[in-house]
Amino acid sequence: MNFIASIRVTLKESVLDPQGSAVVHALHSLSFTSVSDVRIGKYMEVSFHADDEQTARAQVLRMCDQLLTNPVIETYSFTLAEVRE
Amino acid sequence: MNFIASIRVTLKESVLDPQGSAVVHALHSLSFTSVSDVRIGKYMEVSFHADDEQTARAQVLRMCDQLLTNPVIETYSFTLAEVRE
Repeated sequence: MNFIASIRVTLKESVLDPQGSAVVHALHSLSFTSVSDVRIGKYMEVSFHADDEQTARAQVLRMCDQLLTNPVIETYSFTLAEVRE
Repeated sequence: MNFIASIRVTLKESVLDPQGSAVVHALHSLSFTSVSDVRIGKYMEVSFHADDEQTARAQVLRMCDQLLTNPVIETYSFTLAEVRE
């Protein structure tokens, strides 16, 4: 079975986000003054093969823990979609 | 009303993604050999105020078009959630 994992990686709440703060100021300068906060993270779409959905979920967890995220400062969530031929 | 927009920005299909290719090789070296493709993009959570949902949607579209995305090489999608006090 073919799958696509859509992974959202964000900084933990306790971690300062200077990039996000810069975007808030830029949005304010473009008159989007109602914006109170921006958090910037990574978005990844991983296409891969697995025997079944449970195996696929386990693989995504391992990929995130081993390479795609930094557990010290980041958290992540993902959705999994099967890709039919 | 308070809202959070969760915005996913990805490179257009026609645009080369060297970062994604590098991640594919890294995953293969960690024995995730079933991975066929990785696309890397930006994920942003924008907290803001708007009078109603329709106005909120229009604001997100304008923020994306004016600052948060590069329409030449990127596409985006977003979900909108109301934040209750």
